[in-house]
Amino acid sequence: MTENFYAVIPAGGRGTRLWPLSRTSKPKFLLPLPGPRTMIQATVDRMRPLCSTSRLFVVTSERYAGDVREQVPCIYPDNVIEEPVARGSGPAIGLATAIIHRRDPTAIVGSFAADHVVTNTDAFENAVLAAVEAARLGYLVTIGIEPSYPETGYGYIRKGPPIGTFNEMLVHQVGSFREKPDIAAAEQMIASGECLWNSSMFIWSASMLMEAMERFIPDLAAALTRIAADWDTSRRHRTFQDVWPTISEITIDHGILERSDRVATVPGTFGWTDLGDWHGLGRVIGGGTVEPLAIDADVLTRDADRAIVMGRGRLVALLGVDDVVVVDTEDALLVCHRARAQEVRHLVDDLARRGATNVI
Amino acid sequence: MTENFYAVIPAGGRGTRLWPLSRTSKPKFLLPLPGPRTMIQATVDRMRPLCSTSRLFVVTSERYAGDVREQVPCIYPDNVIEEPVARGSGPAIGLATAIIHRRDPTAIVGSFAADHVVTNTDAFENAVLAAVEAARLGYLVTIGIEPSYPETGYGYIRKGPPIGTFNEMLVHQVGSFREKPDIAAAEQMIASGECLWNSSMFIWSASMLMEAMERFIPDLAAALTRIAADWDTSRRHRTFQDVWPTISEITIDHGILERSDRVATVPGTFGWTDLGDWHGLGRVIGGGTVEPLAIDADVLTRDADRAIVMGRGRLVALLGVDDVVVVDTEDALLVCHRARAQEVRHLVDDLARRGATNVI
Repeated sequence: MTENFYAVIPAGGRGTRLWPLSRTSKPKFLLPLPGPRTMIQATVDRMRPLCSTSRLFVVTSERYAGDVREQVPCIYPDNVIEEPVARGSGPAIGLATAIIHRRDPTAIVGSFAADHVVTNTDAFENAVLAAVEAARLGYLVTIGIEPSYPETGYGYIRKGPPIGTFNEMLVHQVGSFREKPDIAAAEQMIASGECLWNSSMFIWSASMLMEAMERFIPDLAAALTRIAADWDTSRRHRTFQDVWPTISEITIDHGILERSDRVATVPGTFGWTDLGDWHGLGRVIGGGTVEPLAIDADVLTRDADRAIVMGRGRLVALLGVDDVVVVDTEDALLVCHRARAQEVRHLVDDLARRGATNVI
Repeated sequence: MTENFYAVIPAGGRGTRLWPLSRTSKPKFLLPLPGPRTMIQATVDRMRPLCSTSRLFVVTSERYAGDVREQVPCIYPDNVIEEPVARGSGPAIGLATAIIHRRDPTAIVGSFAADHVVTNTDAFENAVLAAVEAARLGYLVTIGIEPSYPETGYGYIRKGPPIGTFNEMLVHQVGSFREKPDIAAAEQMIASGECLWNSSMFIWSASMLMEAMERFIPDLAAALTRIAADWDTSRRHRTFQDVWPTISEITIDHGILERSDRVATVPGTFGWTDLGDWHGLGRVIGGGTVEPLAIDADVLTRDADRAIVMGRGRLVALLGVDDVVVVDTEDALLVCHRARAQEVRHLVDDLARRGATNVI
């Protein structure tokens, strides 16, 4: 347990690409992916050795707060921050940091998305501990993941000069950030040996973050400071409802980290995935295997290499369909090629245009 | 209505390749394919303008007799012949012919499988009328289908010299029969312009057939004559039960037509399909269209050319899966490539080996 360390879990992403399992009423962080625990349960499980539950916060929308409290009852009810409207992860993380900073100006705050998969929790804890040490020295720290293949769906970090060894890990300044690259650029970055995936796991001292926010996004800093000032008073609800909707969406990466010269990155080697789509889920569960994956399904296959079936216990037979994804829910069935998994969101858009709100 | 014309509908094929819709308890001739009528209903509908229901027979297994009577109540109950064990279509057709011959030695008998699809019923009736005329002259007639593509799943007939014009159609002797060819041989036969698909629709005078059977398959002729002799007596059941199981399976094509020199073929141009598998069903319903086909399904697609979905009313979304077949039944889901549709039977074999009798 790390003294004065607070963890914030922003839980907002709908996870449209994981339709038809994910729904407006059941976003991916509430789903058992890869299972058996739901994503937010697994995230909380991962944080508990690092942080007392009194210092563990979830920021989510009003709509999901009930489900969150039910799934992770260890979180203090008052530590579930309910956004009246969604403003993305940047303001969510900023708000929690502002509230914590108001209560404990010495706080170190880490932010960990509710929909990431981590396979080696010991290594994860070690990376967080290293990041906390760097944060105590005033760095805004992001955990960079040693890439295992040229993923085009992630952002990348190029390492700058080393700043020292923390918890036996060599920590670097961040040289530059790079948005989702094309495959050629991704391959080049992997080959350079100097680039990491940007996990968007952040660790900083609350005071440093507030200072940077005041400098780079003063409007946001002012709004969040105003909400935080009233948070532990009878005016919490009113101020929050008044001010929060006026805030603009912005990410921490864009808004602060790309502009600050006090950004460091801790290398993570703990088996990390931003579980975005069915292809990614197949990678997490199946690794590189060609054997079809069956999740809650009785699967019979002939020539269905790398197939992924998420079922409801009933029989699913596959014949001559390599790389297929089958997701069988009660009211909707998806059959999709793994290479097209990113486009599932377009199906959801199509359904929204049709007005088929009951199945999205 | 054609005088003294009797029609026999052998209804025995399980239709394993149409699993999971077809089941042991629900063979394909009892299913609404392509719908809305079931295959046996459509077959009976087709025969009714040609043949009074008193002269319309169905030969099926004891197991399906109840369903047959329910689906086609116009068939006289006594005209549903219930086989104690299955012996294939040859003995089934032979038995009905023997029984009819015993009652009416002048009978012309036609045999029409319960699981064929015919799209142009006027042209079908004309072909049958031509065949009946040729049969009256003593020919064993098979209806040959003008092929529209080099199908490898059918048998072929090569036309011999013409024997005359019947009902305004030029009828040929049969030169030779050819079993399911490979694609090269099929293409060659199509190119020759002399070959027809063997529809296994047969028309003959009952006396000619009995004569040919006595000559080429005397054991079968003796057994069927014995059963027929007792059919309209109190010994029907006992003799049938005693003799029928001793009969060997043999097809009319192999056993008689390939050996006789009195075989003729009437060209059929009525849009015929031996509905064997899902690919064939797609061809029947969709023709050459690339548009996905939806049968009882609410289908949403992006890049799913030539897809076939047979559903249960619920939403099925397809993304990046050309040529896919999706068959969604209550307890089993099939996802298969159209090119592999013939192999669905192997999945059923696999399930049988697993002992999964509840889903086959």
